[in-house]
Amino acid sequence: MPVNAVGREVPSEINGVRFKPFAGDMKTPPEGRRAGSLIRMTPRGRNKVVKSLKEVIKNVGLEDGMTVSFHHHLRNGDFVVNMVMKTIEKMGFKNIRLAPTALFPIHEPLVPMLKNGTIRRIEGSMNGPLGKATSEGYMKETAILRSHSGRVRAIESGEIHVDVAFIAAPTADAYGNLNGVDGPSACGPLAYAMVDAYHADHTVAITDNLVPYPAHPISIFQHQIDYVVPVDKIGDPAGIMSGTLRITTSPTRLKIARYAVKVIEKVALKPGFSFQAGAGGVSLAVTKFLGDIMRKRGIKASFINGGVTKYVVDMLHEGLVDVVFDGQAFDLDAVRSLKEDPNHIETPLAMYGNPYSSGGVVNMLDVGVLGATEVDIDFNVNVNTHSDGYLLHGIGGHQEVAAGAALTIITVPLYRYRVPVIRERVTTVTTPGEVVDVIVTERGIAVNPKRDDILEALKGTDIPVWDIEDLMKKAYSICGRPEEPKTTDEIIAAILWRDGTLIDVVYKVKNH
Amino acid sequence: MPVNAVGREVPSEINGVRFKPFAGDMKTPPEGRRAGSLIRMTPRGRNKVVKSLKEVIKNVGLEDGMTVSFHHHLRNGDFVVNMVMKTIEKMGFKNIRLAPTALFPIHEPLVPMLKNGTIRRIEGSMNGPLGKATSEGYMKETAILRSHSGRVRAIESGEIHVDVAFIAAPTADAYGNLNGVDGPSACGPLAYAMVDAYHADHTVAITDNLVPYPAHPISIFQHQIDYVVPVDKIGDPAGIMSGTLRITTSPTRLKIARYAVKVIEKVALKPGFSFQAGAGGVSLAVTKFLGDIMRKRGIKASFINGGVTKYVVDMLHEGLVDVVFDGQAFDLDAVRSLKEDPNHIETPLAMYGNPYSSGGVVNMLDVGVLGATEVDIDFNVNVNTHSDGYLLHGIGGHQEVAAGAALTIITVPLYRYRVPVIRERVTTVTTPGEVVDVIVTERGIAVNPKRDDILEALKGTDIPVWDIEDLMKKAYSICGRPEEPKTTDEIIAAILWRDGTLIDVVYKVKNH
Repeated sequence: MPVNAVGREVPSEINGVRFKPFAGDMKTPPEGRRAGSLIRMTPRGRNKVVKSLKEVIKNVGLEDGMTVSFHHHLRNGDFVVNMVMKTIEKMGFKNIRLAPTALFPIHEPLVPMLKNGTIRRIEGSMNGPLGKATSEGYMKETAILRSHSGRVRAIESGEIHVDVAFIAAPTADAYGNLNGVDGPSACGPLAYAMVDAYHADHTVAITDNLVPYPAHPISIFQHQIDYVVPVDKIGDPAGIMSGTLRITTSPTRLKIARYAVKVIEKVALKPGFSFQAGAGGVSLAVTKFLGDIMRKRGIKASFINGGVTKYVVDMLHEGLVDVVFDGQAFDLDAVRSLKEDPNHIETPLAMYGNPYSSGGVVNMLDVGVLGATEVDIDFNVNVNTHSDGYLLHGIGGHQEVAAGAALTIITVPLYRYRVPVIRERVTTVTTPGEVVDVIVTERGIAVNPKRDDILEALKGTDIPVWDIEDLMKKAYSICGRPEEPKTTDEIIAAILWRDGTLIDVVYKVKNH
Repeated sequence: MPVNAVGREVPSEINGVRFKPFAGDMKTPPEGRRAGSLIRMTPRGRNKVVKSLKEVIKNVGLEDGMTVSFHHHLRNGDFVVNMVMKTIEKMGFKNIRLAPTALFPIHEPLVPMLKNGTIRRIEGSMNGPLGKATSEGYMKETAILRSHSGRVRAIESGEIHVDVAFIAAPTADAYGNLNGVDGPSACGPLAYAMVDAYHADHTVAITDNLVPYPAHPISIFQHQIDYVVPVDKIGDPAGIMSGTLRITTSPTRLKIARYAVKVIEKVALKPGFSFQAGAGGVSLAVTKFLGDIMRKRGIKASFINGGVTKYVVDMLHEGLVDVVFDGQAFDLDAVRSLKEDPNHIETPLAMYGNPYSSGGVVNMLDVGVLGATEVDIDFNVNVNTHSDGYLLHGIGGHQEVAAGAALTIITVPLYRYRVPVIRERVTTVTTPGEVVDVIVTERGIAVNPKRDDILEALKGTDIPVWDIEDLMKKAYSICGRPEEPKTTDEIIAAILWRDGTLIDVVYKVKNH
C-alpha cells in the first residue's frame, strides 16, 4: 500500500472506488466539474404532502443499493433517521448506502441493520454505538468518514451521489419551505442539509410542525423539495439541545483554557480578529475568558464562526463581535438569536470550509481552538478513534478549521484515565501536524517548530513552553508507555482529508 | 419550418443550436441533469481584490467567443455592463456572447459593439436601443430572449454556459460576500445573479462600497466569488430606482385598474390569498385599490410576489400581508424593507418560477396582474415587440406568472396612439392564450372561454363582459384595421417559452 504524506499506509481503492493518498493540505487540485443535479418538472397544483414514509419511499422509487442521506441538526434527539431506516428495513430494501452528516447514540437501532444487510455501508460521522459496531466488523463494506466540508465537496463532485435526501424540518409548509428556528423540535440552522437539498435526486422533508404557506424564515427553499411528510415528532428537544453546555469546572481543564487564551492574547488578539471554538467544556471556557479580555481591553471581533452557544450569542448581543456565522446551534439561546438577530447568519456548509470552492469562512479565521483524542510528536491530531482503536467520533469541522485558521490551537489534557494523550504516534491521523500550531495542556504548551513567530510572540509570558517530545515524556512518565491498540489488519473505515484524499484508515478491533 | 402549438412557424435550429417547438405549457418534460459548475480550489490568503477590470479579465482568462453575464438590478442606472464591455472591446476581444438578465437604454453604448464584432449575440432582455439595433439587423447572430426563470433554467441546463459572470455589488467585502441593500448604489436583492454566481466558471464582483469583512446581510456568499474589483461608481441611483412609480392618473387606466380589482374581488379574494402585480402605473393602482378592499373587508393575504414597490411594502408593514417575496426592488422603500423586515424575503430566481424545479413561487399564486403590448383573439399576449415589429422589451416574469397564477389578468387599453392593442393576431407571441384568463380594458373585459367558472363568478356585477372578438372589433372600429409590421423574412431574435421551447421568432424590420 502507498504511504501518504503523514506516513500512513493507505490503500488505493476502497469499496471499489479509487482514492488518492493524502499529499498535504491544498496539494491535490480539483478536477473537472461538479455533478449535475436531476432536473424535475413540477406543475402547478401538485400536492407535495404525503401521509406516510412508506408512501413517500414508494413515490421516490427507492431501490436496493441506493444512497439515502440525513442531516444531524437534531443530534442525539433525532427521531428521523431511525423512523426512515426502520421503514426502509420493513419494506425489505437491502444494501442501502447511508450518507448522513452524523449519527449519534440515539441511532443505535441501526446496528442490527448493519448485520442484516439493510445497510451495506455508512459514509458519515458515527458518534458512539454505530462506530463501535463498525470497529467490531459488523459493516459489510468500509465506512467512509469525511469532515463537514469534505462531505459537501464529495456530494458536489459526485463522489457521494444521493438518491434520496430525507430532511428533518422543525418547520415546513406544504410546498417545502423549511426552517429550523421554529416548532417544538427547533434546532437552529439547517445548514448541513443544504447541499443535499440541491444535489439529491429526490428530496423529502419530514416535519412535526406543518405551518401555512409560506413558512418563514426560509433556510431551504421550496424549489428544492419534492415531498413533505408530516409526522408526530421528529425529535426530542432534550437530545437536540445536547452537548456539554457548561463551562468546565475541572481545575485541570480551566488551566488549559487559561493557557489557550493567553496564547491567543499574545499571538492573535487585535481589533477585528476572528475565532472559532466549539461546545466542549474547555472551548466554552476559552470563549468566556476571551470575552472577558476583549471587554477589558476594548477589543471587538469581526466574526465568530460556529457551532454556536449561549456564550457566543451573549458576545454578539453585547456588541463584542459584529457577526456570528452559524452552521450548527448548540442551545436554545443560539436558536433564538439565529431567528431574531440579522447579524447571526446561517452559513451553508459549502461556505464553511470547502477547499474546493472560491473560499470558505475558515480561510478568514484568525484563531481556531480544537480538541483531540490524541496528539503526536509530529503534531498530528486524532479525533476519530480512542487509544484502544475504537472508532467513536466523527471529524466534524476539525480539518477545515485547523487548515484554515492562522493560529490553530489544540487543547488537550496530557493524559486521560491514565492513558497518554500526547504520544509518539496517534492511533489515527485526522488532521496533519502541518496545519496545527500549538498544543495546549495543563502542564504547558508545545509550539510547532515551523512557527517561530509564535515562539517569539510568547517570549516573556509565564506560559511554560516545551518541546512536544518533552510533553510526551511527561505523559509517559506518569502513565507508562501506551499500549498499541489491539487491531487486526482488516480496514473497517477510511478517514478522508477534506479534499477527498486518504489520510488514514481504521482497523477492526480484536477480541471484542 | 415546423408550426408550434400557438400556430407560429419556428425554425428547428438557431445559431447552430437545436430548439424544440413550443408544445404547450408543461408539455415538454426536462431531460437529464443540470450542468456541473467548475470546481476551484482557493487556498487561505489568496487576495481576491483586483485593482482593475483589465487585470481581472486577464486573470479569468477571457477568450474570443466566450460568454459573459450580468444582472440588471441596477436597471437604467447601471454603469457596470458598459464599463466591463468597453474594457473587453478595448482589449480586442471579439465574438463575445453577452448573457445579461436585461439591458436598458443606458446600455446604448453597446450598439457599436454589435456592429464591430465585439459582441456576436445577446441572450437576454433588451429594453430599448439594443432591441432596436437588433431589429434593424445589426446583430451578427440571432438574439435569444428568455423569461426570468427561463434564463435560470437555461443556465442550469447548460444551454447558456457562462464563462465569466460580472456581478454589480452595491456592497461587498474583500472576500466576496455581497449584498444589494447597502451602499450608494443600493438596489435591493441580488436575486437575478444567484444562478450566475453558482454556475459561472469565473465570478467577478464589482463594487463601489467595499466594506470590512464580513459584509452582511449576505445575498451572494464568498465561496461563489473569485474576484472583487472596487470601482468609483457602479451606478446612478436615479436610474437604479427608475420605473413608473406613481399610480396612473389617466382616467382610462384607472378604469382598467378598477375593473381588474373587481374581477379579483369576485373571483379570487379570500383570506390567505396571494397576488403579484408589477410596477407599471395600472399595476400600482391595482395594488392600491386591492389594499383598500382588503382593509375594508378585513382580508389578509398570505404573500405578495414581486417586483416590490412602496405600495407592497406598506401593505406588509400594515399587516395586510404576511410575507413579501422579492426578486427585484423598484424603489428605496422596498430596499429598506428588504434590509429591515424579516418577512420581506429575497427569493432566488430559481425559486421564482422555474418550471424545471421542484416548484416555484408562481405555482402558489392566486392572482397575477400583467401588462401587454398586444393581445389577440386567441388570448395570446405579446410583451416583446411593438406593432411596428420592433423588439423593444424583455419577457421579464410574464410567462411564469401567467402560467403559474390561478387567475391571470392582462390589463391593457383597447388601443394606444390609435393602434389597436386587441387584435386578430399578435405580432409576436410571448405568452400563449392557454395560460391567460381575463383581458381587462377600459371598455370592459373578455374571459377565456375555457374559464366558465370566472364567467359564473362575475354574474351580477356591473363589469361589461365581452367576447374577445367584440373587443377587437371595437378597437378596429376606432383605429381601423392595424397594418402588418413591415418586416423581412430574416429572423433576428427567438422568443423562448420558459421551458426552452421556441414560442415565436422576431423578424428584421424593413426600410428603417
